[in-house]
Amino acid sequence: MMGKLTVGVWGGTGHTAREMCRLLLGHPEVGSILPASRQREPFELVHPNLAGSGLELLTPRELAERAGQLDAVFLCAPAGEAMRAAADFRQAGVRVIDLGADFRFRDPNDYQRVYGREHTAPQLLGEAVYGVTEFNRPRIAQTALIANPGCFAITAILALTPLLRAGRIAADRAICVHAVNGTTGAGSTPKSDLMHAEVSGSMLAYSLEGHRHGPEVEQFLGDVAGRPVTVDFNTAHGNFARGIHLQANVPLAGPATRDDLLGLYTGAYGAGSAGEYFVLVNTLPKTGERNAKQYEIYPRLRNVVGSNFCHLGLDCDTDRGIAKIVAVTDNLVKGAAGSAIQNMNLMFGFDETCGLRAYAL
Amino acid sequence: MMGKLTVGVWGGTGHTAREMCRLLLGHPEVGSILPASRQREPFELVHPNLAGSGLELLTPRELAERAGQLDAVFLCAPAGEAMRAAADFRQAGVRVIDLGADFRFRDPNDYQRVYGREHTAPQLLGEAVYGVTEFNRPRIAQTALIANPGCFAITAILALTPLLRAGRIAADRAICVHAVNGTTGAGSTPKSDLMHAEVSGSMLAYSLEGHRHGPEVEQFLGDVAGRPVTVDFNTAHGNFARGIHLQANVPLAGPATRDDLLGLYTGAYGAGSAGEYFVLVNTLPKTGERNAKQYEIYPRLRNVVGSNFCHLGLDCDTDRGIAKIVAVTDNLVKGAAGSAIQNMNLMFGFDETCGLRAYAL
Amino acid sequence: MMGKLTVGVWGGTGHTAREMCRLLLGHPEVGSILPASRQREPFELVHPNLAGSGLELLTPRELAERAGQLDAVFLCAPAGEAMRAAADFRQAGVRVIDLGADFRFRDPNDYQRVYGREHTAPQLLGEAVYGVTEFNRPRIAQTALIANPGCFAITAILALTPLLRAGRIAADRAICVHAVNGTTGAGSTPKSDLMHAEVSGSMLAYSLEGHRHGPEVEQFLGDVAGRPVTVDFNTAHGNFARGIHLQANVPLAGPATRDDLLGLYTGAYGAGSAGEYFVLVNTLPKTGERNAKQYEIYPRLRNVVGSNFCHLGLDCDTDRGIAKIVAVTDNLVKGAAGSAIQNMNLMFGFDETCGLRAYAL
Amino acid sequence: MMGKLTVGVWGGTGHTAREMCRLLLGHPEVGSILPASRQREPFELVHPNLAGSGLELLTPRELAERAGQLDAVFLCAPAGEAMRAAADFRQAGVRVIDLGADFRFRDPNDYQRVYGREHTAPQLLGEAVYGVTEFNRPRIAQTALIANPGCFAITAILALTPLLRAGRIAADRAICVHAVNGTTGAGSTPKSDLMHAEVSGSMLAYSLEGHRHGPEVEQFLGDVAGRPVTVDFNTAHGNFARGIHLQANVPLAGPATRDDLLGLYTGAYGAGSAGEYFVLVNTLPKTGERNAKQYEIYPRLRNVVGSNFCHLGLDCDTDRGIAKIVAVTDNLVKGAAGSAIQNMNLMFGFDETCGLRAYAL
Repeated sequence: MMGKLTVGVWGGTGHTAREMCRLLLGHPEVGSILPASRQREPFELVHPNLAGSGLELLTPRELAERAGQLDAVFLCAPAGEAMRAAADFRQAGVRVIDLGADFRFRDPNDYQRVYGREHTAPQLLGEAVYGVTEFNRPRIAQTALIANPGCFAITAILALTPLLRAGRIAADRAICVHAVNGTTGAGSTPKSDLMHAEVSGSMLAYSLEGHRHGPEVEQFLGDVAGRPVTVDFNTAHGNFARGIHLQANVPLAGPATRDDLLGLYTGAYGAGSAGEYFVLVNTLPKTGERNAKQYEIYPRLRNVVGSNFCHLGLDCDTDRGIAKIVAVTDNLVKGAAGSAIQNMNLMFGFDETCGLRAYAL
Repeated sequence: MMGKLTVGVWGGTGHTAREMCRLLLGHPEVGSILPASRQREPFELVHPNLAGSGLELLTPRELAERAGQLDAVFLCAPAGEAMRAAADFRQAGVRVIDLGADFRFRDPNDYQRVYGREHTAPQLLGEAVYGVTEFNRPRIAQTALIANPGCFAITAILALTPLLRAGRIAADRAICVHAVNGTTGAGSTPKSDLMHAEVSGSMLAYSLEGHRHGPEVEQFLGDVAGRPVTVDFNTAHGNFARGIHLQANVPLAGPATRDDLLGLYTGAYGAGSAGEYFVLVNTLPKTGERNAKQYEIYPRLRNVVGSNFCHLGLDCDTDRGIAKIVAVTDNLVKGAAGSAIQNMNLMFGFDETCGLRAYAL
Repeated sequence: MMGKLTVGVWGGTGHTAREMCRLLLGHPEVGSILPASRQREPFELVHPNLAGSGLELLTPRELAERAGQLDAVFLCAPAGEAMRAAADFRQAGVRVIDLGADFRFRDPNDYQRVYGREHTAPQLLGEAVYGVTEFNRPRIAQTALIANPGCFAITAILALTPLLRAGRIAADRAICVHAVNGTTGAGSTPKSDLMHAEVSGSMLAYSLEGHRHGPEVEQFLGDVAGRPVTVDFNTAHGNFARGIHLQANVPLAGPATRDDLLGLYTGAYGAGSAGEYFVLVNTLPKTGERNAKQYEIYPRLRNVVGSNFCHLGLDCDTDRGIAKIVAVTDNLVKGAAGSAIQNMNLMFGFDETCGLRAYAL
Repeated sequence: MMGKLTVGVWGGTGHTAREMCRLLLGHPEVGSILPASRQREPFELVHPNLAGSGLELLTPRELAERAGQLDAVFLCAPAGEAMRAAADFRQAGVRVIDLGADFRFRDPNDYQRVYGREHTAPQLLGEAVYGVTEFNRPRIAQTALIANPGCFAITAILALTPLLRAGRIAADRAICVHAVNGTTGAGSTPKSDLMHAEVSGSMLAYSLEGHRHGPEVEQFLGDVAGRPVTVDFNTAHGNFARGIHLQANVPLAGPATRDDLLGLYTGAYGAGSAGEYFVLVNTLPKTGERNAKQYEIYPRLRNVVGSNFCHLGLDCDTDRGIAKIVAVTDNLVKGAAGSAIQNMNLMFGFDETCGLRAYAL
């Protein structure tokens, strides 16, 4: 029988690393957590919400030197840096889960096109498995290198895959995705535009020339559809720290009703406890009265913040032939650290929900 | 020479009426403000931000009886009620500015289709002028009945008209509009879903089957384009009290660049003080570096809250041929009371900016 | 060996009941949760953050009929109602943890004075133990009726007890407590003043004539001090949904320094993992530079929200002889449901931290 | 007849300077505004809420060279820098309103003690008048150098002066003041602790060893009382960008009731439009029912944000003999730029409310 895991968290001072540590601290099969960062401050000063945990920051070199003791390492590094670290850790036999973008594209040319830098570890791309757990379980369970999806990407993929699979999307039309993310999604480096006094009561669009999660979603959905899919991806920061509120507008190939489409989603994800544990479809019927329960038939962001759940809901503009899918997730949990642990659970043969069953506040 | 105006505010206790009173109190040509409501509470208890103003609530009957003293009346009534009041006030010779939806559709059948009730004053529809000031000045100056546009509608119209006029929109494609509104947009009646504890840190999509401002925008833009236009309109409430952050995604008829499109907008609205006073186009160039000033090239909501300005900005997804227009307004000012006063200024021959020049906080 | 517990949650639709269910769902020793309410709606519609849990609402009568199956019941009822329910459940042999105020005062006259109603179950007051776990462990472990402290009260008690015990408080002076609570503290009944549009960006003082948690704290601290203690208690709602930020200003009996006082607190609660699990003292030294780390030497609210932790910190105005104690808690966890479970753990002989070890987001 | 004023704003890129420019742009007697800063960016990029204003940033040297054209200059400089600039501008005959702390203490030793630096222009202290307009009108009207009060200080002074004047404060007791400020009060320099993701839903105490506005208030109130007054000043940042919610707890010299104290305040500030224009006392009676209108009997922050008003309200804890005064202001208006203009109006003989009559949103 295996003892508890020893895991590293490489790049241990940002929001994602904080969340990795928070969730790993509650994981019953993890015995030891080793966060590492170049920043030389006490762990509990950097992450005061984890005061009392007793964790301490190593240097990256110290963590590298302990590679032999690690069962797995989570990479929370800037684009480019993870490629190097992953190669080293893989060589040392450590299973790697990269929360960045370095291994998300099969083709290194796509990486170069989207991220503007050369891929320096293309030899690892064949081994890397894209970690949308719900759709890639067998491959995830057997690999030692996971490319954890982008926070927007996994939310969009969960929102869109059932419709794509069912062939209901008008073939030549773009899918329009609007996603609003919390300000933790902008990183922890101080910037004027992201000061509280600037964002409070405001909203900030960004990357409208085409967000880098767009091609990531296009790659995945193209595989699902068996043909190229165009995703018009749009992003903004809202006046909240955590969470993604994503809406996808999908031109339909033919007539549809809300109930009809809801059936597709409950078919794909199950209804209630019978289906996907972390993907819940809101099937509350519309009453016909305009104002009654008007906010309850769609998922609301607050109901997933702090949890690994994705809540899905939808509607249909029958006059214009457009399906509207709403998906909400926590960008740091299902969108990052939670999915990473879900994948770790599969890789090590644990119950997939282990350490992840907390509900939103 | 005319003395100062006496104006009524019919339906004087909601957010829109509060804002009407706030702005009218600062208008140098308005001498007397008479708000009226069925609610029997002291004005300064209902609107504590206007404490010190000395305003008092009349009953609707009392206001009706004083119609002879009124130069103009602003109707802030629920759909359906304004039709009756407008007819009465018009009969008494009072100029009417309706902030609701009752006179926004030329065809009473459109009203019935969208609002689900019969139009009871169709005889007034010919006289009613749709109050997007920037595009309807001559007719506004000469009418006595204004249909003030919906808050989402005016924001969308300002965002889209230049592109439509230039014939740059792919003919058979829907324009996708995503608009996030403050919670004042949901009215002041207490509802569980809109309690602070529910909305704080959250986001609430609504009316995704097709918001009622969609057809209003389609009517206006159809006139501009000279052909039917399809607007896929999507709405949510964000974690802020005031303001609209609207993004329109427009499939382009041919190749375009950001600079190219910016030229269209500065052409339409002018650049700096030379053009439309209340419509400002953000022409800040992109630097090519991904993170530098990334939030400053698009309009940010906070820069218009409390003001009558509409800030516009844009980008172009050249890979996918889609223009992205961002427009921000205050839903209660440019989206309601501010536009209403802008129209009043035209109707009475005042400088159009009179009483409306305050900048955002 | 005992099987898993079956527990009831009486009054199952408010914020406190929601939080009870959320935490009980993650408790490894709880097998069955039976929430009950007069409200006839599906559980997952009332508590959408708990979608997927499979819980269902009973009627109060149904829960009463199942008293024989219950190991414990948590009362989340309005003042007055809990007295009746507690008597019934105690008669049926069920252990009772009342999250309301009905059993917090030893003397029924104090209850009547503070809550304005007669106590109808004074025979139970002798059995009731006040549930500040950290200071009442032996009695809590042996009783079957817990009066769980008020959210403000427990936060103030944790903040003040070490100073009181050490006899450092000037005898004839009032302790001044200012506490800012999230809007979940105001209950879930819709009220105009608590709509999002009203509270967003605002702050609402209330009960300044003397909050009802004041006498509760005075009773406890009077016992600690062995003499009457006067607590000047002041409350407000802040622009957040959850959490209490409490500051106590204490006139000192003699000279003191910050370090000196910090020593008292680490003496009382331990430093790091050696001491009280849920009470953490921030001992970060001041640097002398005014702006460096100025916000890090005091506890910040966000670092406890969602957790059962209380973070404490302090400073000393040596010129004026006043100690400043800052304590932050989550009003629904350490201030209500978390403490209730901490007490349940003691009553049933579980590890006191069982089901409660989650860190703040 | 005098033409319109030309005014400078020295230190033109922070929150206070932005607000100075915003308010000056709406002032009918100001013809030309010259903001100056070492920062070399376009004005409308630094202050995007003032887009369309046409203002341009000078360098400090350029502004100094134009001193001969200036009627007045507002100093928004860090502590220490204003002393030098004030001396230069006074020498050039320009009237100076300093929004910083350099001229707030009569005694340069007090300045040195509180601000930790030597006063380099003590020769100007005799001329400087402390700018609490409501209590210093005659001297303000006749001076050429105003020390505008600190944002907390003016709010506390308006809250406490009537009680002090009436001799109702227990002589040997400290007045306890708790003030929560928006994050604009922390300046505009990026800091980790003030990022939106850190402050959202949180609250940050600071300077608890004794905030520097405490001695400023003690100096003023000591003059009012004719004896030393001790003010225990406590500050925090709340989850909002603008505004101060201040509560003062005052140990009373003898018995008092809420009505009794309200009488003092309406006596001092007048009731309704008869009294001080910008200081409004909330006299709403308490109903005796605990929950009815419980939030309306005290001032709420949102009702003053964006305006120059101070709303005051109060209660009395008769059991403990403590008066509770609540005062709310906008830290950037009545707490800074608004008061500065109110003082300018007096200095130049304009109506004191000129350019300042806007109500809160």
